[in-house]
Amino acid sequence: MPTFSATSTAPVNIATLKYWGKRDVKLNLPTNSSISVTLSQDDLRATTTARASDRYTQDKLWLNGTREEIEKKPRTLTVINELRKARAEMEKADPSLPGLASLKLQIVSENNFPTAAGLASSAAGFAALVNAVALLYKLPHSPTELSVLARQGSGSACRSLFGGYVAWEMGSKDDGSDSQAVEVAPIGHWPSMKAAVLVVSAAKKDVSSTAGMQVTVHTSTLFKERITNVVPQRFEKMKKAIIDRDFPEFARLTMADSNQFHAVCLDSEPPIFYLNDVSRAAIRTVEAINAAAGKIIAAYTFDAGPNCVIYYLEENEQAVLSGLSCLNGVSGFPQVSAAASGDDRWSQQLAAGIERVIMTKVGPGPQSIDAELAEVSS
Amino acid sequence: MPTFSATSTAPVNIATLKYWGKRDVKLNLPTNSSISVTLSQDDLRATTTARASDRYTQDKLWLNGTREEIEKKPRTLTVINELRKARAEMEKADPSLPGLASLKLQIVSENNFPTAAGLASSAAGFAALVNAVALLYKLPHSPTELSVLARQGSGSACRSLFGGYVAWEMGSKDDGSDSQAVEVAPIGHWPSMKAAVLVVSAAKKDVSSTAGMQVTVHTSTLFKERITNVVPQRFEKMKKAIIDRDFPEFARLTMADSNQFHAVCLDSEPPIFYLNDVSRAAIRTVEAINAAAGKIIAAYTFDAGPNCVIYYLEENEQAVLSGLSCLNGVSGFPQVSAAASGDDRWSQQLAAGIERVIMTKVGPGPQSIDAELAEVSS
Repeated sequence: MPTFSATSTAPVNIATLKYWGKRDVKLNLPTNSSISVTLSQDDLRATTTARASDRYTQDKLWLNGTREEIEKKPRTLTVINELRKARAEMEKADPSLPGLASLKLQIVSENNFPTAAGLASSAAGFAALVNAVALLYKLPHSPTELSVLARQGSGSACRSLFGGYVAWEMGSKDDGSDSQAVEVAPIGHWPSMKAAVLVVSAAKKDVSSTAGMQVTVHTSTLFKERITNVVPQRFEKMKKAIIDRDFPEFARLTMADSNQFHAVCLDSEPPIFYLNDVSRAAIRTVEAINAAAGKIIAAYTFDAGPNCVIYYLEENEQAVLSGLSCLNGVSGFPQVSAAASGDDRWSQQLAAGIERVIMTKVGPGPQSIDAELAEVSS
Repeated sequence: MPTFSATSTAPVNIATLKYWGKRDVKLNLPTNSSISVTLSQDDLRATTTARASDRYTQDKLWLNGTREEIEKKPRTLTVINELRKARAEMEKADPSLPGLASLKLQIVSENNFPTAAGLASSAAGFAALVNAVALLYKLPHSPTELSVLARQGSGSACRSLFGGYVAWEMGSKDDGSDSQAVEVAPIGHWPSMKAAVLVVSAAKKDVSSTAGMQVTVHTSTLFKERITNVVPQRFEKMKKAIIDRDFPEFARLTMADSNQFHAVCLDSEPPIFYLNDVSRAAIRTVEAINAAAGKIIAAYTFDAGPNCVIYYLEENEQAVLSGLSCLNGVSGFPQVSAAASGDDRWSQQLAAGIERVIMTKVGPGPQSIDAELAEVSS
């Protein structure tokens, strides 16, 4: 039997309405729905090759050039088992199909950005893995159906199954079958969305998001109010803002929700801090950009780390970048002419704390590609 | 007629259940009740001399050696007018009293600590002013009655009318007459409470508390939950913890409420930050002290600024201070032997960011003293 192979890329997504809290830890079922923008794979992507062969004696996994013990990765095992089960059902229904479900797999995955940068690498990685194996197995699943599998690997991975603007509907079923990603709008609906990712120097995560979110769920006395009375309305409003291409509303909701996510982290016991003084300087700088423009043209958002993602529309790029001119000289930041200076305190702190900028934009979902990743000798 | 004179000192108080939000801005009526510990005046105090004389042609005010235009200080005017009205009523009832109410006042006030240090100077200042004028006028008011006047100068000033452990009951009346401070317990009930005030270098306030709290009231979508469903229970629990001398419970509530106050600041639009990276290092250091002790022996709390106040009991002083040994050499910190080192990252950040430590303890309320402050030539 030949070696079967498929390779998929998958994007990073950055939530604009945040996922924080699980109602079911095993199944990665969230306490609230969330929304994200998918970023271009030109700049940030995971690539995964999946191979099946009767020469393989065990499932094997390589992540960024390092062999990982797959049996110690229960979430990866779960996802692979689910995909294999789906293939087995196909083969049972059509015995003419090659028997891939019984073959061992080799999975090789790489990110084109540092995992440690705190840039949702697990989301892109699980989306690429799910899509690569689904391609290998020729599964008939839709992206939404695949998102249910990816979600079990890493919650926010479900949103990386789509390009453009994506919602993760929390669902209500105990088995999680309705906790899935759907498209809010494709890239083409609002193609001018851009993002500048400000990577903070020496960012060492305070608490892992997996551990941190459950501390919040169990200890924050404000958390329930957030998931019950705040997020549901924001979810509808943000979908509408995207559909209406209403950037000021989209931006206002994005910033408010980032702040509230970090607020419930701080309201946890012990408190969780992801924002630091550099993050604060980024917030004040974005506020200054909007104040100078006389309208909201930029929105900050922060995941479980100090890195700042700034969303803006292409037509406002010059105004936004000139407001960030303190970053001239930082790797990845285009040289721009300086804006009328804002508060020097924030500019200095921001410039001193950012080691790299990734200039990117809204992008498509997972892509099948021909190039294959080679395994590394184990 | 002679010159009449009285002088009072008043203490700083540091809230353990935070005041944040006004339901009536003019009257300084709060959205929630609060609790504080009064700190010793040996270390932190305001001193105010009030004089009345028929030689004075206008009310005059000096703060820390600088003549202030009293007519531009509406809150000071309000407080003085209320005190004068009370004196006028006394004189009306007993015409044998000297006619002080019609005389102009000279008020001289000083703090023994830098106003800019963010150490509740306005609370001590207004409490000293109210008490000095009340002494001058020989008003029969109880501390609680005076607290209603002081509250109109600066909300938290009402709590500086008492020593020991103090509650500010929010009250429900529109005129604020029941929004007042009461004693939870006198110093003698729990005399071993100590406090280390860690003053952060170059602390420049992000937003004034007066402005900041109303931003939170009007924009935070979590604030209402805090004042409606969180603080009322904490208020009762914290009073009980003080009465029971239950330090772990007192500490847990104190830390949780400090964190929640800063969480609703962050949930405001635009977000308000008072904690910085040095504050976070102080939090992690206190957590390490408690972890090393195997029980809660220290509690951090932060007002509207980055300075950290650490409460602890005298019997645990050695353990607490050795956990802060990274501060050896910082002004005001006693040289202690180093503890088994915690996380070096936090120790280094804390040591680099603290410019001064004030070692103090629970203390009494305002004191009448004989020494008089001289006015400064205007």
